[in-house]
Amino acid sequence: MLDEVVCVAAVTILGVLEQAYFSLQVIYARRKYSVSPPCTTGPPEFERVFRAQANCSEYFPIFITILWVSGLFFSSAAASVCGLLYLYGRYLYFQGYSASAQGRLAPLYFSAKVLWLLIGLSALGVLNSMGQLYLGLDFLQQLSGLFFD
Amino acid sequence: MLDEVVCVAAVTILGVLEQAYFSLQVIYARRKYSVSPPCTTGPPEFERVFRAQANCSEYFPIFITILWVSGLFFSSAAASVCGLLYLYGRYLYFQGYSASAQGRLAPLYFSAKVLWLLIGLSALGVLNSMGQLYLGLDFLQQLSGLFFD
Amino acid sequence: MLDEVVCVAAVTILGVLEQAYFSLQVIYARRKYSVSPPCTTGPPEFERVFRAQANCSEYFPIFITILWVSGLFFSSAAASVCGLLYLYGRYLYFQGYSASAQGRLAPLYFSAKVLWLLIGLSALGVLNSMGQLYLGLDFLQQLSGLFFD
Repeated sequence: MLDEVVCVAAVTILGVLEQAYFSLQVIYARRKYSVSPPCTTGPPEFERVFRAQANCSEYFPIFITILWVSGLFFSSAAASVCGLLYLYGRYLYFQGYSASAQGRLAPLYFSAKVLWLLIGLSALGVLNSMGQLYLGLDFLQQLSGLFFD
Repeated sequence: MLDEVVCVAAVTILGVLEQAYFSLQVIYARRKYSVSPPCTTGPPEFERVFRAQANCSEYFPIFITILWVSGLFFSSAAASVCGLLYLYGRYLYFQGYSASAQGRLAPLYFSAKVLWLLIGLSALGVLNSMGQLYLGLDFLQQLSGLFFD
Repeated sequence: MLDEVVCVAAVTILGVLEQAYFSLQVIYARRKYSVSPPCTTGPPEFERVFRAQANCSEYFPIFITILWVSGLFFSSAAASVCGLLYLYGRYLYFQGYSASAQGRLAPLYFSAKVLWLLIGLSALGVLNSMGQLYLGLDFLQQLSGLFFD
């Protein structure tokens, strides 16, 4: 079973490394703008970096959760590709937000869309597993049969 | 093995959808009370919605973690039922906190109790697995034997 | 498969209990320094406890994620030992930060090092699984063969 999710695990490690990168940027911003912990307010340049990291951290557990549910119940490959797109969107969001509050919007919408796609794939996969288990139906296979048979 | 945790996965997706709902409420509150990012302070009405969402986000990874440990090591059905109760408690908490700081307390205590129950089930399940593995004992089965044999 | 990760699950429950302990400390600090929710600012003594808990909560999902990836793909025993060290480091961090901003630094660096070790073990385990799956190579086994054959 581990073989099937090895790509999801690789995307997970990339996600953790991205969070580590964001955390380091906050440490650099604290030094640059002389904002010592536990203080979290300061010039807008600092607050944007701080909030960008806080927002990414807040979404990280949601992303990891839904990445694994879609990888386990829908498709490891589809989940991994969406996961890479999400992490790329979050990188653009962090860079954009660090530059200006306006700059965060386009990549934020992009990563939100990828997250909704992962939620949709997870829901499809889980509903299909429930259909197989409780009703004896495999509607995803029947659906793909319509197109490829 | 996936079949056994399909209900836990369904509760997980509901939990992610609830977090998405809370995040949208913060966006609406930002517009209503004109609090633009990266600012996180404003009228108490806004701050209560903001803190309600922050508190739910903070507990989300703890909830998901303990939901899956109890689902895997104790019982998928018991974990799923507790998970639904927790998500319902968190919904009441969000509504209550949005209305008044006092209104958050009763549902907060309720969801804390459900979380402690999940922690207890997880601990029982993991200790039982360790007992089976290292001591050759299955105390949960012996315990249920006392009542049902 | 559950038997192999039972120690990782036990460390996970300890981690959840530690987070519960940190949350209780914030509640006690709120009472002691009369800082009522939704307010999060107050005397430095309160803010340090609040930020210590916020920082531990922020890292909790990253820790749990990488604990399980290293436990599944590298070694359950190695991941569990690192996990215990990390939780001990976080306890010292919380105590140190509660006393002074300076006191958080040494245990913060310690737990960061343990986290990097877990990331390294995860990456090794996942790359090895990919090597086995796509290239037919098991470099971890070959490496251990160099030392133990």
